[in-house]
Amino acid sequence: MDKIAPRSGTAFELRAGQKLKVIDPEGEQVADLYAFNSANHNEYLSSGRSLDYNESLTFKTGSKLYSNQSNEMFEIIEDTVEDHDFLLTPCSKATFRHFYPDEEPVPGCHGNLVSAFAEYGIPEHLINTTFNTFMNVAVDENGDLSVLPPKSKAGDYTVFEAKMDMVVGLTACSAGESNNFSYKPICYEIIEA
Amino acid sequence: MDKIAPRSGTAFELRAGQKLKVIDPEGEQVADLYAFNSANHNEYLSSGRSLDYNESLTFKTGSKLYSNQSNEMFEIIEDTVEDHDFLLTPCSKATFRHFYPDEEPVPGCHGNLVSAFAEYGIPEHLINTTFNTFMNVAVDENGDLSVLPPKSKAGDYTVFEAKMDMVVGLTACSAGESNNFSYKPICYEIIEA
Repeated sequence: MDKIAPRSGTAFELRAGQKLKVIDPEGEQVADLYAFNSANHNEYLSSGRSLDYNESLTFKTGSKLYSNQSNEMFEIIEDTVEDHDFLLTPCSKATFRHFYPDEEPVPGCHGNLVSAFAEYGIPEHLINTTFNTFMNVAVDENGDLSVLPPKSKAGDYTVFEAKMDMVVGLTACSAGESNNFSYKPICYEIIEA
Repeated sequence: MDKIAPRSGTAFELRAGQKLKVIDPEGEQVADLYAFNSANHNEYLSSGRSLDYNESLTFKTGSKLYSNQSNEMFEIIEDTVEDHDFLLTPCSKATFRHFYPDEEPVPGCHGNLVSAFAEYGIPEHLINTTFNTFMNVAVDENGDLSVLPPKSKAGDYTVFEAKMDMVVGLTACSAGESNNFSYKPICYEIIEA
């Protein structure tokens, strides 16, 4: 099992059939997930396509995540939380300036993904809306969004089965509002097919 | 005033300060809107950043639409409908195969935007989730999404003020579910600053 330090991120290769287990070791932490087709970095995870085919904002066991080319990238095959967000872009220096103007801005999940994907030659502008594992975003009757503490408890996890060979990025979230201002680590494990 | 024929799309330049009036001339039609920074096509309209800063799924007079670099691209300054969608990607051959398997797939708004933006040298893979003007997507208490007939009546319109120089793409929607199977035209007007 690998550990992602608080407010950092990583990238790694995941082959079709392998499973990625994302674990919240201490509870109330968020892991932003993003992915590219290894063979073509212009094919990447798409919130809009996934919401369209999922016909729901709710992702849980059995849900699939699609690429911008409408191909399956992941299927959620186990999930002890079933409360995630696929609406919001990862926090960045700009979002920190917007939401936390009194804090020194940190790279955030976006900046951490930029650094991690750069090692695979993938440029910043291809990183879009991430699948924000364990992130709890409520929608009220007016459509207004509230970021609430994650429902994940220590040891909770989600398992994603890879449907293509991918470069995957994963973070331990940097934005206080997303993780109830706890800034904890995230663990992950690659399970062979 | 320009007219976009049913099931087609166009692209044009819009300068900072100009206003784009998108009009539903017959009612119950959807216009997918997308935009790139004229000076840097790697900066483009971002659903995820806009939802984040808007803190709502609801866009109306006063709402701003942001780029992936967190810069303002548009502000809605007049809006007789105030019911739009910024969750779903534009329909494409692949979405037609998924949702309408008995129909011969058409290029859809995605394909029409690909053709329109190609004239500006912008590649397909940079076209993400569009701002779907007049598209009525309901979210129920489980987070499930339903595409309903637009609330727009004949002559309804939304005015977007440009905040940077852009290449803008706009369509008259091709997907039956989005426009109550009416496949009507869309009109637009560029109003000088």
